[in-house]
Amino acid sequence: MERLDLPPDVVIRRLPLYARSLRYLQDEGIQFISSHGLGTRINVTAAQIRKDLSYFGEFGKQGIGYNVNKLLAHIEHILGLSKEWLMVLAGVGHLGQAIVRYEGFGSRGVRLVGIFDNDPAKVGQVIEDLPILPDEDLARVIHELGVKIAVVAVPASHAQSIVDTMVAAGIRAILNYAPVVLRVPDGICVRYIDPITALHSMTYYLAQEEDKRRSQTP
Amino acid sequence: MERLDLPPDVVIRRLPLYARSLRYLQDEGIQFISSHGLGTRINVTAAQIRKDLSYFGEFGKQGIGYNVNKLLAHIEHILGLSKEWLMVLAGVGHLGQAIVRYEGFGSRGVRLVGIFDNDPAKVGQVIEDLPILPDEDLARVIHELGVKIAVVAVPASHAQSIVDTMVAAGIRAILNYAPVVLRVPDGICVRYIDPITALHSMTYYLAQEEDKRRSQTP
Repeated sequence: MERLDLPPDVVIRRLPLYARSLRYLQDEGIQFISSHGLGTRINVTAAQIRKDLSYFGEFGKQGIGYNVNKLLAHIEHILGLSKEWLMVLAGVGHLGQAIVRYEGFGSRGVRLVGIFDNDPAKVGQVIEDLPILPDEDLARVIHELGVKIAVVAVPASHAQSIVDTMVAAGIRAILNYAPVVLRVPDGICVRYIDPITALHSMTYYLAQEEDKRRSQTP
Repeated sequence: MERLDLPPDVVIRRLPLYARSLRYLQDEGIQFISSHGLGTRINVTAAQIRKDLSYFGEFGKQGIGYNVNKLLAHIEHILGLSKEWLMVLAGVGHLGQAIVRYEGFGSRGVRLVGIFDNDPAKVGQVIEDLPILPDEDLARVIHELGVKIAVVAVPASHAQSIVDTMVAAGIRAILNYAPVVLRVPDGICVRYIDPITALHSMTYYLAQEEDKRRSQTP
């Protein structure tokens, strides 16, 4: 029985973790897994997994667990990964180059079809079979190919203006590496990849630990 | 009046965004900012900012707003950024090299002091003044220098074992780029930098949009 309420974003964010873990199980040749077994691999309780999946239907059988292949196919379908989404990248500095070369991005569901930089010295260079195009071509490529996903790896000062261009041309989902919060219209999905912010939220806990240790030392 | 309850992690994760935004304001020469003005820069409501900051004391004056320099210094102190934390990196592939070269990491509060790889061909190469050391030296360097933070940029298959080594040697906070969920003892802080998972959670919404559009077309 399918639930009628919409899954919250936090559930949608966990589904790719389930899918990745199921892919690893597939690679190991494992055919069935319990919700408990799947949970221990991703630090989620069995109850949480069952609750998350209940938004999308009934999976798994009492005593047998989940069929790895079937559950993976189902989750990939839910995540829209049974088709291929085209993606562009803006900003081909050190970070952008690492992104282009990162095999993960060539994986399922997503394909990088255009890379862009505003540095004339970089335009025309080829990375992993993709020629670097000038920013002026960005809107045209997005529009002509029907690209929906963009990766932003430009400097912070340049990010908002290039995102405005992208959204006007038809981009609906943005993976943002620039260290700045973007303003986008309703309905545009943005995810932030922000290692410095992540680091600076961990130093809080390190400082707390040091304070505690110091106050305990006589 | 300081609140007695502990700030939840979601608040701790927002503080670095406030700090970054205040640094940009500082660069622009702005001395005072209202909670509303700060909020619009990071898509957070004024009420949320006031609530978040109330965990740590009283800031800002009615009608004047926050003193940018003072609030920034205060937040950096809360985040433990008034001292410098040492950091090591494991895995100097394309991604690891981009991390070493990323100026952001050289910024406040954190300093990369050792980079490690298990590829003998890489050991001894120098990137941004840091020689690549073999994995065998990892535990010794962490221990001798009192390093508390590690960045993990090794392949998924190698991540858990290197993290076990790191934690045993004294690492307390891990920024993990490997596409795998890590098992760590209680008290060890882990943040995930996971672009593929972020992408795969956005394709869900893109697929929903397409379904809706298709069902609306007669």
